[in-house]
Formats: sequence, C-alpha cells, structure tokens
Amino acid sequence: ADGEALYASKGCLACHGADGKSPIAPAYPKVVGQSKEYTEQQMKDIKSGARSNGQSAVMKGIMAAVTDEEIKAIAEFLASSS
Amino acid sequence: ADGEALYASKGCLACHGADGKSPIAPAYPKVVGQSKEYTEQQMKDIKSGARSNGQSAVMKGIMAAVTDEEIKAIAEFLASSS
Repeated sequence: ADGEALYASKGCLACHGADGKSPIAPAYPKVVGQSKEYTEQQMKDIKSGARSNGQSAVMKGIMAAVTDEEIKAIAEFLASSS
Repeated sequence: ADGEALYASKGCLACHGADGKSPIAPAYPKVVGQSKEYTEQQMKDIKSGARSNGQSAVMKGIMAAVTDEEIKAIAEFLASSS
C-alpha cells in the first residue's frame, strides 16, 4: 500500500495538512517525523478507542475505514517525512 | 516558571531526550515543535488519565508532581523549540 496516497485518500490531510505539519487547528498535532512505531500505535489506539483524548475522538470514525496494513503504510510514510 | 529548567528538573528529558526529539525508545514521541496548545493538552490529559494509551501511563506518576502553571511553561518551551 502507498502510504503517501493513502494519507490523501483517507482524508488525513484535511486536518493535519498536505505536508503533515500544518494542522488546521492548534488542537491537532503535526504528524510527520515521529517514529513509525509511535505513529502506527497512535492511529491504532485512536481506531480502537484506547486513545480518545482531545480531538482524537473525531478521528475514530475516519480510522474505521483504514485497515491495519494501511495504517502501517501511512505510518511509514509519515515517519520518513519531515 | 522557566520551561526549559522544568523540562530538566521534572525528568522529561529522561524519556524524551535533552533536546526533546531523541526519545529513548521508539514508543515515546518527540515532543518539540507541536503547538503549545496541543503540547499542554497532552500533558494535562496524561496527568488526569484522559490519555493513558501506550507508554503514557508511565508518565502519569511524573505529571502528578507538575502543576498546571509548570505544564504551561514546559509546553511553551517545547513549542518554541524545534
């Protein structure tokens, strides 16, 4: 799976910015440059509800349409971006 | 309160690195360069338990010794670092 294409097609850029570091509101994090492990874990935890603080609850619905394999690809793309 | 001094004295650098972007394990995030609002909210949510995913539960004990005013100072310091 192509992480960069998924980052766009799954709507991540709508909140986190096309470059992954210009979120539309201060409450949303920049999502590039973290380790792929941390990035993957946050997406999984938001999808499962293990993380639901702040605005992350908004993201839970979006993550329902993203498979674990797609999450891994997006995480690898974001971790390799800066 | 001096955010940079607090970042050291409260032990944050032990896990997140002296520069805030060299965590000792991939499971811990880099904590510089986010907005001060997001950074402050994550520390508050970990202190309150509203965020307890991944390794953040480890941090809850540490945050018990950090006041809201100190959290704000640390967040401002980290947001202004890169």
